[in-house]
Amino acid sequence: MSSTRTLIRGGLMITAAEETHADVLIEDGRIAALAAHGSDAAGAWTADRIVDATGKYVIPGGVDGHTHMEMPFGGTFSSDTFETGTRAAAWGGTTTIVDFAVQSQGHSLRAGLDAWYAKADGKCAIDYGFHMIVSDVHDGTLKEMDSLVSEGVSSFKLFMAYPGVFYSDDGRILRAMQRASGNGGLIMMHAENGIAIDVLVEQALARGETDPRYHGEVRKVLLEAEATHRAIQLARVAGAPLYVVHVSAEEALAELAAARDKDLPVFGETCPQYLFLSTDNLAEPDFQGAKYVCSTPLRPKKHQEALWRGLRTNDLQVVSTDHCPFCFTGQKELGRGDFSRIPNGLPGVENRMDLLHQAVLDGHISRRRWIEIACASPARMFGLYPQKGTIAPGADADIVLYDPRAEQVISAETHHMNVDYSVYEGRRITGRVDTVFSRGKIVIDERRYTGRTGHGAFVPRSTCQYL
Amino acid sequence: MSSTRTLIRGGLMITAAEETHADVLIEDGRIAALAAHGSDAAGAWTADRIVDATGKYVIPGGVDGHTHMEMPFGGTFSSDTFETGTRAAAWGGTTTIVDFAVQSQGHSLRAGLDAWYAKADGKCAIDYGFHMIVSDVHDGTLKEMDSLVSEGVSSFKLFMAYPGVFYSDDGRILRAMQRASGNGGLIMMHAENGIAIDVLVEQALARGETDPRYHGEVRKVLLEAEATHRAIQLARVAGAPLYVVHVSAEEALAELAAARDKDLPVFGETCPQYLFLSTDNLAEPDFQGAKYVCSTPLRPKKHQEALWRGLRTNDLQVVSTDHCPFCFTGQKELGRGDFSRIPNGLPGVENRMDLLHQAVLDGHISRRRWIEIACASPARMFGLYPQKGTIAPGADADIVLYDPRAEQVISAETHHMNVDYSVYEGRRITGRVDTVFSRGKIVIDERRYTGRTGHGAFVPRSTCQYL
Amino acid sequence: MSSTRTLIRGGLMITAAEETHADVLIEDGRIAALAAHGSDAAGAWTADRIVDATGKYVIPGGVDGHTHMEMPFGGTFSSDTFETGTRAAAWGGTTTIVDFAVQSQGHSLRAGLDAWYAKADGKCAIDYGFHMIVSDVHDGTLKEMDSLVSEGVSSFKLFMAYPGVFYSDDGRILRAMQRASGNGGLIMMHAENGIAIDVLVEQALARGETDPRYHGEVRKVLLEAEATHRAIQLARVAGAPLYVVHVSAEEALAELAAARDKDLPVFGETCPQYLFLSTDNLAEPDFQGAKYVCSTPLRPKKHQEALWRGLRTNDLQVVSTDHCPFCFTGQKELGRGDFSRIPNGLPGVENRMDLLHQAVLDGHISRRRWIEIACASPARMFGLYPQKGTIAPGADADIVLYDPRAEQVISAETHHMNVDYSVYEGRRITGRVDTVFSRGKIVIDERRYTGRTGHGAFVPRSTCQYL
Amino acid sequence: MSSTRTLIRGGLMITAAEETHADVLIEDGRIAALAAHGSDAAGAWTADRIVDATGKYVIPGGVDGHTHMEMPFGGTFSSDTFETGTRAAAWGGTTTIVDFAVQSQGHSLRAGLDAWYAKADGKCAIDYGFHMIVSDVHDGTLKEMDSLVSEGVSSFKLFMAYPGVFYSDDGRILRAMQRASGNGGLIMMHAENGIAIDVLVEQALARGETDPRYHGEVRKVLLEAEATHRAIQLARVAGAPLYVVHVSAEEALAELAAARDKDLPVFGETCPQYLFLSTDNLAEPDFQGAKYVCSTPLRPKKHQEALWRGLRTNDLQVVSTDHCPFCFTGQKELGRGDFSRIPNGLPGVENRMDLLHQAVLDGHISRRRWIEIACASPARMFGLYPQKGTIAPGADADIVLYDPRAEQVISAETHHMNVDYSVYEGRRITGRVDTVFSRGKIVIDERRYTGRTGHGAFVPRSTCQYL
Repeated sequence: MSSTRTLIRGGLMITAAEETHADVLIEDGRIAALAAHGSDAAGAWTADRIVDATGKYVIPGGVDGHTHMEMPFGGTFSSDTFETGTRAAAWGGTTTIVDFAVQSQGHSLRAGLDAWYAKADGKCAIDYGFHMIVSDVHDGTLKEMDSLVSEGVSSFKLFMAYPGVFYSDDGRILRAMQRASGNGGLIMMHAENGIAIDVLVEQALARGETDPRYHGEVRKVLLEAEATHRAIQLARVAGAPLYVVHVSAEEALAELAAARDKDLPVFGETCPQYLFLSTDNLAEPDFQGAKYVCSTPLRPKKHQEALWRGLRTNDLQVVSTDHCPFCFTGQKELGRGDFSRIPNGLPGVENRMDLLHQAVLDGHISRRRWIEIACASPARMFGLYPQKGTIAPGADADIVLYDPRAEQVISAETHHMNVDYSVYEGRRITGRVDTVFSRGKIVIDERRYTGRTGHGAFVPRSTCQYL
Repeated sequence: MSSTRTLIRGGLMITAAEETHADVLIEDGRIAALAAHGSDAAGAWTADRIVDATGKYVIPGGVDGHTHMEMPFGGTFSSDTFETGTRAAAWGGTTTIVDFAVQSQGHSLRAGLDAWYAKADGKCAIDYGFHMIVSDVHDGTLKEMDSLVSEGVSSFKLFMAYPGVFYSDDGRILRAMQRASGNGGLIMMHAENGIAIDVLVEQALARGETDPRYHGEVRKVLLEAEATHRAIQLARVAGAPLYVVHVSAEEALAELAAARDKDLPVFGETCPQYLFLSTDNLAEPDFQGAKYVCSTPLRPKKHQEALWRGLRTNDLQVVSTDHCPFCFTGQKELGRGDFSRIPNGLPGVENRMDLLHQAVLDGHISRRRWIEIACASPARMFGLYPQKGTIAPGADADIVLYDPRAEQVISAETHHMNVDYSVYEGRRITGRVDTVFSRGKIVIDERRYTGRTGHGAFVPRSTCQYL
Repeated sequence: MSSTRTLIRGGLMITAAEETHADVLIEDGRIAALAAHGSDAAGAWTADRIVDATGKYVIPGGVDGHTHMEMPFGGTFSSDTFETGTRAAAWGGTTTIVDFAVQSQGHSLRAGLDAWYAKADGKCAIDYGFHMIVSDVHDGTLKEMDSLVSEGVSSFKLFMAYPGVFYSDDGRILRAMQRASGNGGLIMMHAENGIAIDVLVEQALARGETDPRYHGEVRKVLLEAEATHRAIQLARVAGAPLYVVHVSAEEALAELAAARDKDLPVFGETCPQYLFLSTDNLAEPDFQGAKYVCSTPLRPKKHQEALWRGLRTNDLQVVSTDHCPFCFTGQKELGRGDFSRIPNGLPGVENRMDLLHQAVLDGHISRRRWIEIACASPARMFGLYPQKGTIAPGADADIVLYDPRAEQVISAETHHMNVDYSVYEGRRITGRVDTVFSRGKIVIDERRYTGRTGHGAFVPRSTCQYL
Repeated sequence: MSSTRTLIRGGLMITAAEETHADVLIEDGRIAALAAHGSDAAGAWTADRIVDATGKYVIPGGVDGHTHMEMPFGGTFSSDTFETGTRAAAWGGTTTIVDFAVQSQGHSLRAGLDAWYAKADGKCAIDYGFHMIVSDVHDGTLKEMDSLVSEGVSSFKLFMAYPGVFYSDDGRILRAMQRASGNGGLIMMHAENGIAIDVLVEQALARGETDPRYHGEVRKVLLEAEATHRAIQLARVAGAPLYVVHVSAEEALAELAAARDKDLPVFGETCPQYLFLSTDNLAEPDFQGAKYVCSTPLRPKKHQEALWRGLRTNDLQVVSTDHCPFCFTGQKELGRGDFSRIPNGLPGVENRMDLLHQAVLDGHISRRRWIEIACASPARMFGLYPQKGTIAPGADADIVLYDPRAEQVISAETHHMNVDYSVYEGRRITGRVDTVFSRGKIVIDERRYTGRTGHGAFVPRSTCQYL
């Protein structure tokens, strides 16, 4: 045998489908074989390196389908570079991110995508792909969409909010959806009625309501639900699939559920901040609420149970982070006295796998569902499966050894994201990432970083596998 | 290496979760390991027997969660014995059945179960388990339910139809559900309002409406939907899970879907006859319609699309056969001149895997969903997973090599069930079972029966894994 | 002009349809004409008696479609006779009641109806009609239903609760509905799953849960909703209309609303006790909760808002009282130590019009809707319109002058019902009946009783006018 | 008695609420009194003129809440002037119209309204009011809305279609709704997603799909339903009521029904063309389909039954005409070769009462519901009740004697609208207007026109009475 072989022995392998006492054999960065503990087959294996996973879970590396590294917003940039952000992801057990390249209005998709290729190239600790934010739908853009799909950038995000920046009107949305219907692309939607919201923002500011909590009040649940409904109807007219990002409200979820009951190809993502945080955080005094400003906004607590239910009923399929950190000092502070100037976004890429494991312990979801919503479903959704998102013969050896009994306290003091606060500061979690493989290479070794800037490679993606 | 090893090489392994080009290594009747085609690990394997699966699917053996062998009904018995019926199952790619032991009113569960143990013991070609039909709910029966769960008979069927025979009133149903809520048992429900139906039967016969097609007219869709709704509400009151058998009507499915949208532990099964046949068959002249008499009855064709949709949206989780054959000559004929005397039931245990593969080709479901509804989900539902229903290290080596390109025509001339007609007579199917392993032993070898009466063993079951 | 003429002058006439400043001219017990205040036509009128209604509402006399006078229940009788009960009704502004004649099991409808004719004959202060409680559905009963419709007893109540007393199984319900479908009768349903409830009653008592509040806990919302759904489905199968009595729970209302969205002829009644009282009352200490024991039971407070909404959306059409009083001393006390022995029922015939006027002031309903749900809709529902329920030329002169500004406090000290407590004891109400006409005769004259035992006549009813 | 008195004797008076055998006494243009046939009161009446209504219905004059006389559209004007249009309305039994004054973009509401006052002044055969079309929402317009409400123009129409002409974006809609929420105005909505539709129009024309039937195909049902849903959500955010005009599709109706189930103040209107015509008409050859081009467009026939059901369930409250005639010759012809240039609109003000009476005979609605949807509800909706829309003491004497047995055939040959075709050409109707009173004056006298240009007066309206 000429290849490099690693053997992970003794763990409980958990995928979206199975919980198996199996040893995992890695050859040259890919998973070569699985064998039952104690079988003759397993016993016969030799390897260059044998990792003992006794007492640990052996799970697929996390796939975070929604991050924004070095993202320009409101005159500043999100504070994690591809280098710092992907390293933090690895620490958190995530081995693939799909980040958003941005088309600027008046420029081509190509120009935007190339800029993002350049930002990421040679910087990443783990593998990465790109979605494309389409800010300017016209005949040229539509043609470019076809070539991007061929190139492995097979999903396109549109915004029903942020007029003048990312906003597309319903005609442009319809055109982009029609194109996706033809080329296999997946339309991702920021579903908020931004035109109406901006009226409410202006009125709130005029009334002197400038604190961060008004961010949550003006971006109303009904306007998220409305936009979600509208996006679904436009997708039906276009005959296209739809993926709604960062679903935060029970009423928006209800629109997805109704569509899915009709067997429409409609999908939804939520994020840990909507599952664990609420408008109570936005209302924290002394402008601390600014730390929690993101869009869609945090909602009153009662929505959390609805979102957990949606994850159980599979009306929501994916939990991503929408990781888009801005430091409190110097960045979030831009919005003192005017909540509309607070950069929208918060950090999370490092915390997702742990928070969702805690949800397993809290009884919200099962262990297999944890892996499904965090690894397998995002991989399928974005055309990465089974290369990513599972442990199966032939897959990339992106594997996490997870210690389900270790305890930790989340804190900005100890996290690895490049941001000066944590939205989960002080939260106790049971469960912790122990060791992380990226394509067979150990990047976190028993909680020491052994990875390398530039190890991570761009992954061209196939099209959505739910269609 | 002292064990017996078989290697299945070159096939496309399909489970509910994955499609993988993997070789499968069997040791002593269990799956020992999986390895990527062409990997060093796979190349190093040796075996006593190597089976070439090139061009074939390697799938888990089917799990048919609903059969009635030697079932007494209306003064006669279903025509397949455990010997003939399980052999036919094997021919059709099914390697586990869960049959129904029957409590007679006035007798204990134990007496009924022992009778069924005796019928099956030493007769079966493949493995089998039992559900228990509870006809007489009282304090004694309730206590027996606990011990049956411990013994591996962990599901209990109740009837809202057939007063005087199997029927339980709502109070008895509630008591049984409460007990199941405590002991982990799963309540399976025949959901038709039999009290109301019997009024309509009497009225139809009084009007001289005696032909088989009236069987379909009196057992109304609304009365299936009503009973389904009622069973769900009773289960909510009891805090118990519910599995509704042989769902045939869109309106009944809608009740399940509504319950599942609420995240209630409510499950539904349909059968190939509802997916492929309709009231058109019941209306066949010259009493031929009697061949299609079963309850719930066949429905107008438009319900088929709804059921396929339910399978896609996961509002239905399982396709079983409700295999309960009666010969046309001498059995179905008992109901000439009075449809209510036609024995209820039809054959199908041999046809399920093929019909569902055809549904893949017809675009109703995906390949993985085929395996899920026919193998993995019934195994999980009835506490057999991962011993049955998947191909994973440690699982029983119940494996089918399926030829997806072979063509066949279904016919009573060629089928192996002990019944003188086929409800699918003349239907062309693409796809055919080639070779079948039961716990590592080949029982069908390239379409020759190599099995043995008595090979099949009773499988004690754990409790439902969806809870 | 040879007839007796009364002129009501100066009031604001309110019907379900109009609010008009009109004078009302009564000739010989019927409304002869209406004229605009100050019109020449009005100015020209002369009359034997002129009643000044300035500052008052001139409204139709109330129609209470659900009362139980001298009703046998649990070994005792409701404490109001037709004499005392109808007098109290008049005091409360109600000029027509429809009471329930009872068929005893084993006896004919005729025998039951004749017994009730005898109870009421010559005793009543106001007009009255009868519904028929059908306890024993068989061929004979079904034939009798036809003749009762002809005789003006055109509605039939069935019970899904109280097995052994009033209970009909689904087959009997279906048969009665089919008959009503043919003869124009209206099926009224007590919709609770009594078979399941009785299991819960027995279990509660076995656990020592004997206080009145357990009456509310065992008669579960889901079991009212279930029975409501089942009754609707059976009515659909029979092609018959359905009127559900005493709807108390949001979930039951939702079933009605869903049926009505489908344009099914399904109707619902609620009662003041469900709108104004709650399980908090049932939980009053020292067995005081027994005063509030009725079935369907009082519900948690949140259901009240749902019921008001149902009245506004017209998913509920009628507010009746289900007046069925039992004295606390000697009657309700029968159930000390066993809530299941507390006679089911509570007083209210005198309070309905006032409570609903208070609801107008509280913003729950409009003035016209007040008259609609309390007068016009019950009259239409039960075939009494326009003889009763409105003020229109040709109608019976059943008229109430209502003082919308008077204040009162409800109390057993001052009420006229023959019962030793009030469920609304101490409640302040704005609005009070001032003067009441029954067929042109003043029975309450500025809050003095001027009526006469035996004035009230049996009113044969036509069939339901909503069909 | 100094006043002018007219007595209508012997008819069956039908209002939304009652069917009464009553004589009607008119004094000085208003209804003074109603008296039962044969009562002494009726017998005592004398009058200047006695009209015998024996065998006829005596009904309120129709209220058509949606007409467009002399409406500019696509470079031409609708072909009925206020003179010809209101005369035709009178012929058809309609005695009040509410027409739409138009704000042009860049001009004030006042300027638009004054222009419409001038068009109508001194021209009308019957009474009229105005709604205001708001094309340009800004601070000035919002202030003007307040003063228009005070002036009796209390409803404001917005468009979600026709970008560049009438279209308001969601922010403008929200602002106008907020204003209406404060001043009692009613927002009327043209609910079609015009931004998306215009994309489909452009694509259809590019494919050479230029015939009238493509007008129906591009204006998709889902885009009407979407806009309806969006308008409802925006109204919820604003806390404002909403009236959706010309509802044509089952899916849009479903949105209204869902809102009304929640007790939201949401209302809907449909028109005879959606109840009686379909896409079959749009597909008539030789450009004849252009006659049926209006927006929302005609729909496939199956929608008709849904709309009738909506009228029965009161999810639709009003039937108006959206009368907006363009001659085929010279006007509709502008769109030969390009369906998007066909003027949108069709004639109907004369046919509404008759078509809806036919619907009574066809079993779709009851007689009282006929009057409700055509007279009473539009009068209440637009603040005209009880002056208009009913027959009650004090109301305007706008009365129609309707012959329910007369037969007629609708034809452009005989109609009185100023347009060269009828969309109902050749349709047989049972029932016909015989005599029409407008404020006590006979304008149609046994099918002779006796009215006068300029008799009709502007009616200032109060606010919507459903709120």
